[in-house]
Amino acid sequence: MNADILKERQNATFDVEKLTNILDGGPELTKRRREIESMVLNDPDFMEEDPNFLSRSERYDQAVRKSAQMILKLREYGIADPEEIYCYKSTVHLGKPEPLDLHLGMFLPTLLNQANQEQMDRFFMPSWNLEIIGTYAQTEMGHGTHLRGLETTATYDPATQEFVLNSPTVSSIKWWPGGLGKTSNHAIVLAQLYTQGNCHGLHAFIVPIRDMNTHVPLPGIVVGDIGPKFGFDEIDNGYLKMENVRIPRENMLMKYAKVEPDGTYKKPPSAKLTYGTMVFIRSMIVGESARALSKASTIAIRYSAVRHQSEIRPGEPEPQILDFQTQQYKLFPLLATAYAFIFVGQYMKDTYSRISGDINQGDFSELPELHALSAGLKAFTTWTANAAIEVCRMSCGGHGYSRSSGLPDLYVNFTPTCTYEGENTVMMLQTARYLVKSYQQAKAGQQLSGIVSYLNETDHRRVQPQPVSARPTVVDINDLASLVEIYKLRAAILVGMAAKSIQQELQHRKNQADAWNNSAIDLVKASDAHCHYVVVKLFTDKLGEIGDTAVHSVVSSLALLYALHGITVNSGDFLQAGLLSVPQVLQISVRIKELLSQLRPNAVALVDSFDIHNKKLNSVLGRYDGNVYENMFEWARRSPLNATEVHESFYKYLKPLRSKL
Amino acid sequence: MNADILKERQNATFDVEKLTNILDGGPELTKRRREIESMVLNDPDFMEEDPNFLSRSERYDQAVRKSAQMILKLREYGIADPEEIYCYKSTVHLGKPEPLDLHLGMFLPTLLNQANQEQMDRFFMPSWNLEIIGTYAQTEMGHGTHLRGLETTATYDPATQEFVLNSPTVSSIKWWPGGLGKTSNHAIVLAQLYTQGNCHGLHAFIVPIRDMNTHVPLPGIVVGDIGPKFGFDEIDNGYLKMENVRIPRENMLMKYAKVEPDGTYKKPPSAKLTYGTMVFIRSMIVGESARALSKASTIAIRYSAVRHQSEIRPGEPEPQILDFQTQQYKLFPLLATAYAFIFVGQYMKDTYSRISGDINQGDFSELPELHALSAGLKAFTTWTANAAIEVCRMSCGGHGYSRSSGLPDLYVNFTPTCTYEGENTVMMLQTARYLVKSYQQAKAGQQLSGIVSYLNETDHRRVQPQPVSARPTVVDINDLASLVEIYKLRAAILVGMAAKSIQQELQHRKNQADAWNNSAIDLVKASDAHCHYVVVKLFTDKLGEIGDTAVHSVVSSLALLYALHGITVNSGDFLQAGLLSVPQVLQISVRIKELLSQLRPNAVALVDSFDIHNKKLNSVLGRYDGNVYENMFEWARRSPLNATEVHESFYKYLKPLRSKL
Repeated sequence: MNADILKERQNATFDVEKLTNILDGGPELTKRRREIESMVLNDPDFMEEDPNFLSRSERYDQAVRKSAQMILKLREYGIADPEEIYCYKSTVHLGKPEPLDLHLGMFLPTLLNQANQEQMDRFFMPSWNLEIIGTYAQTEMGHGTHLRGLETTATYDPATQEFVLNSPTVSSIKWWPGGLGKTSNHAIVLAQLYTQGNCHGLHAFIVPIRDMNTHVPLPGIVVGDIGPKFGFDEIDNGYLKMENVRIPRENMLMKYAKVEPDGTYKKPPSAKLTYGTMVFIRSMIVGESARALSKASTIAIRYSAVRHQSEIRPGEPEPQILDFQTQQYKLFPLLATAYAFIFVGQYMKDTYSRISGDINQGDFSELPELHALSAGLKAFTTWTANAAIEVCRMSCGGHGYSRSSGLPDLYVNFTPTCTYEGENTVMMLQTARYLVKSYQQAKAGQQLSGIVSYLNETDHRRVQPQPVSARPTVVDINDLASLVEIYKLRAAILVGMAAKSIQQELQHRKNQADAWNNSAIDLVKASDAHCHYVVVKLFTDKLGEIGDTAVHSVVSSLALLYALHGITVNSGDFLQAGLLSVPQVLQISVRIKELLSQLRPNAVALVDSFDIHNKKLNSVLGRYDGNVYENMFEWARRSPLNATEVHESFYKYLKPLRSKL
Repeated sequence: MNADILKERQNATFDVEKLTNILDGGPELTKRRREIESMVLNDPDFMEEDPNFLSRSERYDQAVRKSAQMILKLREYGIADPEEIYCYKSTVHLGKPEPLDLHLGMFLPTLLNQANQEQMDRFFMPSWNLEIIGTYAQTEMGHGTHLRGLETTATYDPATQEFVLNSPTVSSIKWWPGGLGKTSNHAIVLAQLYTQGNCHGLHAFIVPIRDMNTHVPLPGIVVGDIGPKFGFDEIDNGYLKMENVRIPRENMLMKYAKVEPDGTYKKPPSAKLTYGTMVFIRSMIVGESARALSKASTIAIRYSAVRHQSEIRPGEPEPQILDFQTQQYKLFPLLATAYAFIFVGQYMKDTYSRISGDINQGDFSELPELHALSAGLKAFTTWTANAAIEVCRMSCGGHGYSRSSGLPDLYVNFTPTCTYEGENTVMMLQTARYLVKSYQQAKAGQQLSGIVSYLNETDHRRVQPQPVSARPTVVDINDLASLVEIYKLRAAILVGMAAKSIQQELQHRKNQADAWNNSAIDLVKASDAHCHYVVVKLFTDKLGEIGDTAVHSVVSSLALLYALHGITVNSGDFLQAGLLSVPQVLQISVRIKELLSQLRPNAVALVDSFDIHNKKLNSVLGRYDGNVYENMFEWARRSPLNATEVHESFYKYLKPLRSKL
């Protein structure tokens, strides 16, 4: 063990294991997680070549091999709990997407939710046994966020009782679905349903795309891989172009909507049924943000404890990078953010499972709020974590740029969360729509409940910012409850300002749609403030659940740092609204510096508490033992360009060049 | 040509060619640039495979081939002007680094600057003719920014009149030098010079590392590639470990410092001689920031004009993404930033060439200011452009994530600028050191000149922020001169606050070094504000040089947007210092929205003015003709994973899996 990192661990003021248990949700869950991880990590069938040294095709090949093994072992060991499956799977694929993701995560669940009994009989067991491998083909080359814009058509032909599927334009080619390019032989295709001359909007169809025996694409099907991406090298995101592809009528998923043999269309009973899945996935992404940021900060903080550079006091040995105030200021707020997002992720998961119980009972009342919250928090947490990973990478100096650091991979595989499952700006605007609606309801005298209930309290004369002097200064910058309060007021004021902007636009004779678009900057700002308030609040709430004094103390410092740092970054809002005075903002800067020093001795222990296994971290810089440089050298020597001492380009180009000069 | 993008061009209010000429520095320079570009782009010898479809080794191979061709052609065509060489080279390698970069950019220039006549005779012509291919080996695995920390030793042995080079530790292994891994047969090695029992600090030595004929590494040399990185796939950044490698005494570069045959050490006459190169390279990086951001905004804005998505007014066709206020708010400030950085880059280049004339005359008086400015602006512009490229990428939705967009490549090849040639935080602190020193001189009554002269004017009682009421509000938010003034005052106040923080720390009995470290957050903030002021000022100054009314008008709007957007992002500073009132900050938000609408019709023309050739842009999304989707489909079909209809993993893993389930 590296001496520096050993000393860091000896200096910690709290019991790492206790904090790990809190993050896992209890000691039993820590134990079970470690059991599952070691099942995978000690299994020789999951040994792999370093993907950094492989071609794209080899990476895909290795991922398919591991996925196939995974299916076998999950059944062999009888792992069936969704959380445990998730843990096993993410250990097998080290947090990366894999070729069977959409088969397991979308194709099978969609069958379960939307297939009728006859379809279940026909499709479920073959899919369960991977004779059918499916994907979910929704997004098209020219259409993502706006589902109504999808162009693929499914036209019913009563003569043969078939649907005829077509990709009528280039922009209608299905594009991006995971596993579509090479892996799947079936796809659930979302298409505009036409029957008896009318369009009935989007419906889902089971379309065979490759021969089940030979795996060769079927007639009328043009299918392939969409080519190399920033990351996601293990997965064959694909394209699908259909030319008069005929499928039996019974291949439309007909649990709810139906087309009868003569072509008569029957509407589904409710539109809210698919709504829940979306909310679930977005809630899960909040947890992904936490995990990605935990990894990145583990790597950056451990390496900063090991790395010595430059000088603080002339003549003394080079200090640990972690002793520089600027390094602490880069990393500790991000560490605090990782903790915040873990707790928010736990809250979202708990809330979802509580509400989904209600939904199963037919009670949809809490769904709109959770929908709005999951949209905004998905955007808020992914944007934050996305930028933060890069700050962590660059805080490692040049070595962060090496693939051996693990940080480039972490970034490229995380950054799509800002775009998929609802593009972040669109998500922020969805949340804003809920906030403005709630605001107007409150203004009209309706009593709001739930997380937006603060909009009741708002004094509606006060949506206009006020000078500091007009407001009593009662904020205590060391009291989290007090800070939660001003985050709340900030959110309320910004929601009010956005609503006012819309009103002003309407007064200038804009229609509702243009008024909305012309207020979009304010609306996004309002959503952001709302989410920020929710995160600070949930972080603060969590402290009440922590019994151990030493752990409580260090996590409280993190929560305070999170809240105060957020204020300095947005100090304009707080000053503008008169929520803080100029001297208070200056005091906050001083307090932040104190908190950095206070957290310094616990920094390594705080990332150790995430308890991320070396193999899952996959970083020479972030190794638990801190033995960075010898391992980096070893890694480099194994790199393919070093397979020969002299690269062939010397003989081909450099040596011949001499004679020409 | 795509109809949308055609319409955009028809609606522009100014002459694109006139603006291009301004950006190039005159119509003759535009003409010559295009000549050089077409020399390369029409040359079949530079035809290439899409690097996205190649392995790392193939990418390196292709780059070596093009570099060898480039050397031949540059000499054939007699292109000798450094600017023209740069243009030719960056067209050949499409802006990417290449294996001979360090030979041409560091090895040859270092010989020219630091070799004595005997060494020039021995090394220059073989290097010019590429019998010797060299690199510059400074950075070590454990040492980058802090040069004095380098561990490699060169110990003089008078018995044989040789230096003995050693890498005494793992952390002392030379790491990162470009072209070191596979390409070079020589390296200029920076090492601690030991002679007669004393260490004389860092000196440069010419070390043969590979046999000039066979290219096999020489005895005592362990050399190779450091392995895959985030980007830079074309270049063999390498490692070098030396074990008792002996080189003749005459291989120490001895134009200035010397070691005599008996081992007597002679000091160099001045330490400032290598200072200039560093300043030059950092100034050049400012231009790189501008180029990278120009490319990214060209891609994002053109694609946003072509792409239709979602709805603004219900029932109407999907609008161009560029019509969404949120999209404009993401992209137009970045477009303005690209223009700002181009003008700052021009200023830095001009200033450097003016001052380097003085330096050659022995006048170093202006060098410290340029040094401080280039350090800060290098950090300020690279950080900004780095984050901005990712904003551009994500503004393209999912397709920004495809390698075909060109944006991932642009990012990974640009982001090292934040780290190399002086890590950005370190750079900001260097600038801060100059600012604080200047501030103290001004406070002591000395009259400052140059760009920091504003520190003279500062009323030193006023470094403490004041309430708005205490200050007359004379700022006109539509007048750039007035905005430059408040940016200047903000910088002055933040420099004062940083200086005051140091003083307070000293009063708390901290030593100078700890006081500095404990004020580092404030110091970085002060540097950032200083750089921001300089950029706003130079952008405003540039407007005076633009004669054409239509061009002047649109570029003025960009400058105003740049200045106002910077204020909203940092509104806390301006409010805190009482430089703006709350109503003014609100007015600025409204004014920004107006500017977005005003710039909207010229957005495409403003990126067209960058005049970046399709092949240099290398993006299906950013194509000049806007024919995005058909070309993306074509590109995907050519991807290697589509070379076979059925991937071998089907036969190896998926088909056999069925029988096991």
